[in-house]
Amino acid sequence: MDASAGTGSSQEYKVIGTSPVRHDGVDKVTGRAEYGNDVKISGTVYARMLRSPYAHARIVSIDTSKAEKHPGVLAVATSADFPEPVARVEDLGEDMVNIAHLSANCLARGKVFYKGHAVAAIAARSLHEAEEAVKLIEVEYETLPPVTWVEDGMKDDAPIIHDDVFTDSMGKLSDKPSNVAKHLHFERGDVAKGFKEADVVIEREYKTATVHQGYIEPHAATAHWNSDGLLNVWTTTQGSFVAQLQISAVLDIPVSQVTVTPTEIGGGFGGKISVYLEPVAAVLSRKCGRPVKISMDRADVFEATGPTPASVVRVKLGATRDGKIVAGESWIAFEAGAFPGSAVGAACMCVFSCYDVPNAVVDGFDVVVNKPRTQAYRAPGSTHVCLAVEPIVDDIARELGVDPLEFRLQNAAREGTVRVDGPVYPRVGGVEVLEAVKASDHWNSPLEGPNRGRGFAFGFWFNIGRRSSVTAHVNIDGTVNLVEGCPDIGGTRTSLSMQLAETIGVSVDKIHPRVVDTQSVGFNAITAGSRITMATGMAAYNAGLAIREKMAERAALLWECEADAVEYDDGIFRSGEKSISFQDLAERLDDTGGPITVNGEAHPMGFSNAFGAHLVDIEVDPETGKVTVLRYTAVQDAGKAVYPPYVEGQLQGGATQGIGWALNEEYIYDSEGRMENPTFLDYRIPTALDLPMIETIIVEVPNPEHPYGVRGVGETPIVPPPAAMANAIYNAAGVHMTELPMSPPKLCAAIMEKEGKSL
Amino acid sequence: MDASAGTGSSQEYKVIGTSPVRHDGVDKVTGRAEYGNDVKISGTVYARMLRSPYAHARIVSIDTSKAEKHPGVLAVATSADFPEPVARVEDLGEDMVNIAHLSANCLARGKVFYKGHAVAAIAARSLHEAEEAVKLIEVEYETLPPVTWVEDGMKDDAPIIHDDVFTDSMGKLSDKPSNVAKHLHFERGDVAKGFKEADVVIEREYKTATVHQGYIEPHAATAHWNSDGLLNVWTTTQGSFVAQLQISAVLDIPVSQVTVTPTEIGGGFGGKISVYLEPVAAVLSRKCGRPVKISMDRADVFEATGPTPASVVRVKLGATRDGKIVAGESWIAFEAGAFPGSAVGAACMCVFSCYDVPNAVVDGFDVVVNKPRTQAYRAPGSTHVCLAVEPIVDDIARELGVDPLEFRLQNAAREGTVRVDGPVYPRVGGVEVLEAVKASDHWNSPLEGPNRGRGFAFGFWFNIGRRSSVTAHVNIDGTVNLVEGCPDIGGTRTSLSMQLAETIGVSVDKIHPRVVDTQSVGFNAITAGSRITMATGMAAYNAGLAIREKMAERAALLWECEADAVEYDDGIFRSGEKSISFQDLAERLDDTGGPITVNGEAHPMGFSNAFGAHLVDIEVDPETGKVTVLRYTAVQDAGKAVYPPYVEGQLQGGATQGIGWALNEEYIYDSEGRMENPTFLDYRIPTALDLPMIETIIVEVPNPEHPYGVRGVGETPIVPPPAAMANAIYNAAGVHMTELPMSPPKLCAAIMEKEGKSL
Repeated sequence: MDASAGTGSSQEYKVIGTSPVRHDGVDKVTGRAEYGNDVKISGTVYARMLRSPYAHARIVSIDTSKAEKHPGVLAVATSADFPEPVARVEDLGEDMVNIAHLSANCLARGKVFYKGHAVAAIAARSLHEAEEAVKLIEVEYETLPPVTWVEDGMKDDAPIIHDDVFTDSMGKLSDKPSNVAKHLHFERGDVAKGFKEADVVIEREYKTATVHQGYIEPHAATAHWNSDGLLNVWTTTQGSFVAQLQISAVLDIPVSQVTVTPTEIGGGFGGKISVYLEPVAAVLSRKCGRPVKISMDRADVFEATGPTPASVVRVKLGATRDGKIVAGESWIAFEAGAFPGSAVGAACMCVFSCYDVPNAVVDGFDVVVNKPRTQAYRAPGSTHVCLAVEPIVDDIARELGVDPLEFRLQNAAREGTVRVDGPVYPRVGGVEVLEAVKASDHWNSPLEGPNRGRGFAFGFWFNIGRRSSVTAHVNIDGTVNLVEGCPDIGGTRTSLSMQLAETIGVSVDKIHPRVVDTQSVGFNAITAGSRITMATGMAAYNAGLAIREKMAERAALLWECEADAVEYDDGIFRSGEKSISFQDLAERLDDTGGPITVNGEAHPMGFSNAFGAHLVDIEVDPETGKVTVLRYTAVQDAGKAVYPPYVEGQLQGGATQGIGWALNEEYIYDSEGRMENPTFLDYRIPTALDLPMIETIIVEVPNPEHPYGVRGVGETPIVPPPAAMANAIYNAAGVHMTELPMSPPKLCAAIMEKEGKSL
Repeated sequence: MDASAGTGSSQEYKVIGTSPVRHDGVDKVTGRAEYGNDVKISGTVYARMLRSPYAHARIVSIDTSKAEKHPGVLAVATSADFPEPVARVEDLGEDMVNIAHLSANCLARGKVFYKGHAVAAIAARSLHEAEEAVKLIEVEYETLPPVTWVEDGMKDDAPIIHDDVFTDSMGKLSDKPSNVAKHLHFERGDVAKGFKEADVVIEREYKTATVHQGYIEPHAATAHWNSDGLLNVWTTTQGSFVAQLQISAVLDIPVSQVTVTPTEIGGGFGGKISVYLEPVAAVLSRKCGRPVKISMDRADVFEATGPTPASVVRVKLGATRDGKIVAGESWIAFEAGAFPGSAVGAACMCVFSCYDVPNAVVDGFDVVVNKPRTQAYRAPGSTHVCLAVEPIVDDIARELGVDPLEFRLQNAAREGTVRVDGPVYPRVGGVEVLEAVKASDHWNSPLEGPNRGRGFAFGFWFNIGRRSSVTAHVNIDGTVNLVEGCPDIGGTRTSLSMQLAETIGVSVDKIHPRVVDTQSVGFNAITAGSRITMATGMAAYNAGLAIREKMAERAALLWECEADAVEYDDGIFRSGEKSISFQDLAERLDDTGGPITVNGEAHPMGFSNAFGAHLVDIEVDPETGKVTVLRYTAVQDAGKAVYPPYVEGQLQGGATQGIGWALNEEYIYDSEGRMENPTFLDYRIPTALDLPMIETIIVEVPNPEHPYGVRGVGETPIVPPPAAMANAIYNAAGVHMTELPMSPPKLCAAIMEKEGKSL
């Protein structure tokens, strides 16, 4: 941890910045923690989905009669069991969701849009019987030509996938159906003038493949629609309240009729926000009167959840001879998958976000194709555009003959920089991150040897704000129960407890966090957007302030003085000569008016910002195209690292996923639009053997919007890796790899082409 | 419902006083509700207790070695696994508890004090193996003479049961061990002078047998002592927070280390407040690392939980010729059972509580005997003394030649009356209850026929106050989640929801109540003492006020006015011309600052008071002594009946239990102190066939201490039945029955004795 880099570290904290035993550690290490598939409600029965074998087809008929006669079958569901969805876009917990599309993605209505699209579901006494009975469902399809690549989908003569999707171009609706669901356009300054001023202009096009978040735990949901009309759902989700809103929207029932209990979650990375199984389990339960559990297998997860978009990104950057970026232009097309709504908007906001680009224009396109509906994947959209920008930045620096790091330092976004989409940065840590790289052992260690290269990339992502609520109860033994509503993915029970502990001046083992269901705590937005430790941390802080205030009132009561006369510092309440510790005062709660319960809420309206930079040394095997990672360092501004090893873990995890994305991961489709590698054997994610220990440097430039200066750290670490790898490969092998994954066959081909050889 | 009787009914309420569908109805009717024995935690193993075959013995040795070798056995526990208990009396949730005795009652330490006293426990893979292995434990006992009747225990030459129990006489400790653990003494006025003024003085002694609450659901607890040191307990309890305190005290661990999740509860009536199984399951779990479940069977429940004391009560009352009670004297001895702490204190407070007795003296004695440690049973102590007072009141009226009801009306306690233990009544409804009897169809219908008699009795019980907390969350669909911590025994989810609904002006189906664990809501005292609908109702009311205030602030934000300018009435917020419904405003929460969460707390310091009177017509079979109940009417002041059918249910249930206690129920002991009838076949509780429909009259004299005038109603209905039955028997058969139960053999013998016959 680089204590000199930021200003936050000068603040003395007692709890924040330490590494106590995590509250959920034992449960997770011993296997006691309950994940989605561990839920066992008395009387539960099991369901299995029937999924489309085609990527694009009209459903002519579904005949479930044979399946219904199977002795083990308890209920059969198709989209006819869902309320007729009205095409409407609703704010479901601060995400705009098209309910008709959400419903049709849970169970196909009229058409299937991708291989694996759910068509029907069967609940049976046992999973085996459900699997058997699913095969008895007879579906007649009329197959249609699939579109499985974003540029194909944009062609004038492309098969039109949805007849109710029109191009929504900055608010203007086109008049005929299109696969281009949205066209975004951002502009700043005078781009033509900017490029005219530029002495160096470089432009290149990049493509990325569909990749999956690859979380360990497949989706699993259990629903029980009670005979009193109340629906209880247990599910592995990144947002129990958002799942509640989505379920109520799909089923068209009041939101309070649904209670969602979040289980432990074995990874999400953005992919466990949308519901898939929950509404289906619910209607099956309503039909058979029993709790119904549906779990996905790995193929279901690959084929029918939400990977990140394949994309085409074109970037053009211009700089003057004195090293100033003066103009940027970008054209970005993202695959939405089966229904509109890719992360292309965020990509547009991020493409030039690391630099001060005074004249810039960005066009973004959201394109439906016959693949699963894409979802967020850690810093969604930013990785795609970073891959295009950073090699060009390297190229310009090379052209100008300046050090690429100095060039970046000169142009880096800082307080006051205006982003292409409008916002002006408050205090951010981009420059400090670059300086930390410059000061690092890795940067200052020479890399030697043939076929080796060092790459570097600079990346950006937001912290989204949104709503968080906690409730806290002071126990008479001086401990505090912290009731949370955000599923704990990355250790947030502890990172929130630490902020509460810091605020009330007790050690963190005195805080007992618990994540409860949607009925037992106030609204909480999703565990995503790097927001929990930051935004829910503010709610915990607010709860802490309220506890201090209420405790001070109790001390005042004991001492017969005004509450204003009571001061609190370092775990001790004082007034004049009198003093009492937090713990001793807690023991007096019963005498002084009873238990103390407080609520803490937070709703940071804007976004916070987190910059990171990754440095990688690789060696290319020119015979095979295999890339070996020799050394890797991830640097990031954490604002203030609440629990440094968690921050390091996020940096290491993000880097690992980014390396996988860069080098190996991809959905491989056949000509019919069927994924050919829907297993972890054939879809290659990095293993421990593939990677060196990933070094980390935490920079701390306090977030001015957070009381402890915290910035969310979960997503930025996936942004720089592919770009850093591309730059390293260029430096090692002299080829510009412009397509992800930069897998051995492609790299081998590029090297041979550069050397004038043919395969 | 007698609308004219009180003043509360003149108040117009929208929700209070109606009978909506109860929130827990479907779960309980369909069997979905989870009771103590339904808890299934992954990996649970089962335990069985070894219980003492002797009523009084020293434990010479316990050899568990053979049991430990049983292949199914996972853990064995004796009191050696509990921390050495320090004899200390602690306030555990507003009940003073001797921790050493509580510990020794869970697992005997050195001595067994009653047949069925737990000596050891075994956790095994299956219940059958646990049962088998328990038989392999070898215990060597040195038997001691048992004391099983209160008067025997008080004798100078009685075997002394505890060598660490001394008579605690109004604060003064005696210097040698005694079975008399406490001597209470209350005095008011000048008793000698009072009796001198009296024209009629009547004195009589009454005895009652040990009886059990007879709840349907036996005790069951599951404990999991996690390897992180945190102990989770699921148990059927009347007080999850009090169980938490007791468990932490017995195990000598911080209270916040224990989380108690209350299951649904199949009756408690005071008998599910003390822990029995929980600490044992906990130490077994700590030893074997698995969740451990222990359930009682019916014999365990009879022999080893807490019945109500057997007792001797002497009462002497004097009245002047003009019908004024002028003096009272009472001597009350209660069996505490194996450890001190009977309800004799409450009996002393209640004995003259129905009347204005200007000169009175009461002496109470708490006596340990070799029977299970007694516990509360619905209005604990009041039934015993009512049985002694009310026949004497009848006798005095008879002597004076006045109507017994008029005599009671003349002497009834009312606002300003001072009770023997000191308190002055605020507005109470005793007189109105008597007037409702007088106006009733039952009272005004003549009873004819041989061997028939009408009996009447007047009874009293408190509402205890104590601490309650709720949390409430406003949902965007206009509903409200009500998070509670009091186990719902008598329909309190709904009675609390109704008070919240009334306060915020919505219908009760808009409230979603949920009873949560001790970690997820603020402290709540026991579900007992007729307190939940009254005291937790005040917490719900306070939460409602807080919701109104916060919602008004949101309306003010929308209307850009001061919050003070917003009025709320009948579900509508208004300011000038503007208005918005609660529901429409709830939909705007997201726009106006996010979710609303509030806490409601209440801590009524004093007691409230509830009077009841029961009227019964019976027929005695002079040949057999069998009593047939012909008609029964229970009248009670409910203050304000929140949910009238629940109030009626409490009146009917209490009357039924009181009739069973009066006529049939008793622990029958052999000469060795062993209960001979520990089954529901031999311990005779009334069945539907034994009783007529019990009529009810609800009187409503608002409780001045409650915002809606509510008085708790759960306990008073068990107070008058035995006295009313005794009076009816006297009127039917001319004999004063002075021992409960007034069972056929005893009544038959009394009739024969009166007629000069011998059996």
